[in-house]
Amino acid sequence: MSIEAAIKALQSAYGDQVSVNSSVLDAHGQNEAYFPITPPDAVVFPNSTAEVSEIVKICAANECPIIAYGTGTSLEGHQLAIRGGINLDMSNMNAVLTVHAEDMDVVVQPGVTREQLNEELRATGLFFPVDPGANASIGGMTATRASGTTAVRYGTMRENVMALEVVMADGRIIRTGTRARKSSAGYDLTKLFVGSEGTLGIITEITLRLQGQPEAVSAATCSFPDIESAVNTVITTIQMGIPMARIEFVDEMMARGFNLHFKTELPELPHLFVEFHGSEQGVKEQAESFGEIVADMGGSDFNWSSKPEDRNALWKMRHNAYYGMKALAPDWKALPTDVCVPISNLAEAVKLAREESERLDLTMSTVGHVGDGNFHATINFDPDDSEQVSRVHKFIHNLNHFALELGGTVTGEHGVGIGKMKYMAEEHGDALQIMVDIKKTLDPKNIMNPGKMLPSN
Amino acid sequence: MSIEAAIKALQSAYGDQVSVNSSVLDAHGQNEAYFPITPPDAVVFPNSTAEVSEIVKICAANECPIIAYGTGTSLEGHQLAIRGGINLDMSNMNAVLTVHAEDMDVVVQPGVTREQLNEELRATGLFFPVDPGANASIGGMTATRASGTTAVRYGTMRENVMALEVVMADGRIIRTGTRARKSSAGYDLTKLFVGSEGTLGIITEITLRLQGQPEAVSAATCSFPDIESAVNTVITTIQMGIPMARIEFVDEMMARGFNLHFKTELPELPHLFVEFHGSEQGVKEQAESFGEIVADMGGSDFNWSSKPEDRNALWKMRHNAYYGMKALAPDWKALPTDVCVPISNLAEAVKLAREESERLDLTMSTVGHVGDGNFHATINFDPDDSEQVSRVHKFIHNLNHFALELGGTVTGEHGVGIGKMKYMAEEHGDALQIMVDIKKTLDPKNIMNPGKMLPSN
Repeated sequence: MSIEAAIKALQSAYGDQVSVNSSVLDAHGQNEAYFPITPPDAVVFPNSTAEVSEIVKICAANECPIIAYGTGTSLEGHQLAIRGGINLDMSNMNAVLTVHAEDMDVVVQPGVTREQLNEELRATGLFFPVDPGANASIGGMTATRASGTTAVRYGTMRENVMALEVVMADGRIIRTGTRARKSSAGYDLTKLFVGSEGTLGIITEITLRLQGQPEAVSAATCSFPDIESAVNTVITTIQMGIPMARIEFVDEMMARGFNLHFKTELPELPHLFVEFHGSEQGVKEQAESFGEIVADMGGSDFNWSSKPEDRNALWKMRHNAYYGMKALAPDWKALPTDVCVPISNLAEAVKLAREESERLDLTMSTVGHVGDGNFHATINFDPDDSEQVSRVHKFIHNLNHFALELGGTVTGEHGVGIGKMKYMAEEHGDALQIMVDIKKTLDPKNIMNPGKMLPSN
Repeated sequence: MSIEAAIKALQSAYGDQVSVNSSVLDAHGQNEAYFPITPPDAVVFPNSTAEVSEIVKICAANECPIIAYGTGTSLEGHQLAIRGGINLDMSNMNAVLTVHAEDMDVVVQPGVTREQLNEELRATGLFFPVDPGANASIGGMTATRASGTTAVRYGTMRENVMALEVVMADGRIIRTGTRARKSSAGYDLTKLFVGSEGTLGIITEITLRLQGQPEAVSAATCSFPDIESAVNTVITTIQMGIPMARIEFVDEMMARGFNLHFKTELPELPHLFVEFHGSEQGVKEQAESFGEIVADMGGSDFNWSSKPEDRNALWKMRHNAYYGMKALAPDWKALPTDVCVPISNLAEAVKLAREESERLDLTMSTVGHVGDGNFHATINFDPDDSEQVSRVHKFIHNLNHFALELGGTVTGEHGVGIGKMKYMAEEHGDALQIMVDIKKTLDPKNIMNPGKMLPSN
């Protein structure tokens, strides 16, 4: 019983589908977070659910860790083989299996990426709305309960995954949920696996809700004299029931970063970037109502993107905020945080983050999915300056505590992975033990992404 | 260790809060389904979470079954003490604890009823949208994952419960979720308890999402030459993204029942009952778009309810459909079913139900939350005619199988309880064992609503 024995058995069963090539291993050990490169002992490329089941059985027999791998865009090290074992790279399982246009749902394999899915859906008049920015795999997005800029209107993966096929830790294949829009038939296992970060089983098929492509789309940016007026604009907009498709906060430092990297000329002030979806008349009405709120709150500098290419440029810039953040200190690293609070506490949370970064003498910029109360304060730092790194850790620690004290969560959408594990006890209290009990029941050998999410895992 | 010992210990600790009065027991043994009166051995009326925890500890020490009780409006016998033990009547825990108007959420105790909550919210400009018809308790609605006429727009309890406080089977008190709109911090325990029917723990506090009261509301009825044209109207309406607040199907037999009981003059044809929420302009636009679809599909007889009292009368009639169904055969019982299928299969499912009822020579009427693919075919039958009763059982059995074959579920919103338990294996396959494993882990003594939901429970 060993990782070595598991890999031998896998090689014997799956030949070329098992790689121990060092460049392949190193590529899978990379990450977009701040963790050291952590190559797995092997990478296995399954082609089917049946193969995943067989692979899991071989690993279970040898107590070899299994970590599913999508596109590697996790920001919390979810995909890293920190206890060795195999990465199960789902990139060959990348078929859009069935589009049910009448029912507005689609069945996909986990290796399908978000952009690929929307490309394949284009002719149907439907689209998949969840948009975390990165071209992540649907499997990875499901496993981390991802969301992004459109969650305020269309929900997160929690609301958009209808059904799953999952390979359990002993190789059993189960199906959860159905294509019916609702059900009261037993425990909601679908929602248990969404956000389980590969610790309970391997997701091999996903049924997603789709949306009709809106008849009309319009987007804009506007600026505010201070953070409070921007955030109060968001609160009023949500309360009035204006169905914003996107409502994104950008602070003055982030505006500067965008100007530096994208050569834009945004006023270096807090901004909202917004998008409206609906009928021609509906979008017009939404935009007018929103415009009135902005004016009431002292906002100005409305800049409309009515042409698709202007909108694409706007959201491409927003999705590539990381490069803008980097531009504030090009030789340093940029580390994003991810707290989410009740929206009434959002201005307070953003203010605390700003004050704390100033107190600790750190360079911080902020973007946020403020319609959900979720924001990413990002710190630029010199990884070789250990004293500064310790201030960065202090900042993250304090920010997470602010979020919990304000009734929120330490991760709105990035997940727990390795980085947030130490806050789980504080966030969940005695409920954490319930999670641990479920994990132990469904994965008694702890081979499913061990060392992640749950401190005792 | 016995039920008797548990009740003695409870009486000694809680005195008058424990009732063994036979009329109280009988009242709690009643049900709105077809199950015999099943009184518990005692009814306990807790006043606080701390008391619930202590009561559960006493019951756990004595292995005494505990069944939470809200308003007793379950249609599947959830609240019946079929293995004896106590009903935990939550009616004293009926406080609306905190309204967070800015965040559009509210924290309530489980004994708060739906109508009470909306009464208390009236002055805030907010409302709680989930509307199963009955004036159910929020605790019961959470436990059965209830929905109703407005789910097509606002979602079910699954989408509207943000956080919970739960007393576990050993008396531990846990909190799941937060008031933040989203989180990726660990397993979604909130969604695990929503719909768990009291089998995993006792829900003692619920945080709910609220909605802004719409500026304008408009409702209407219209009729169709046949079921297909009514259902196709629904499919097109949903696909076009018209944000229907309600879209309810009523078949020709149900229209006759309404006419008999409510003295209305509906054409005895398939109908849609609809409601629009939005701005004045938005509602007008929605109603026009919907009207065009209806005309295209051959619908007619539009009857608008623009005055609030007309709308209230319309929905009161719809919510009291049971009396209309009864009116079709006043001396008999009326038994509702609750399947839900992908919307593209809805016309087929309704047609199969109609054909099957005719084949078995049964009186059937149908209403449905058709925007979700959910419908209730209700059979009138003579409970003293055992041969007819066996045809009723055959009908239900075959209808549930049709629903599963069409990719659906045997219960869209009523829950499993006792009645649907026998279909769980077929609906869930190997996933059922995962539910059983979770149940055994969280309630090893099987004292939480034993004999319900899971066949082995």
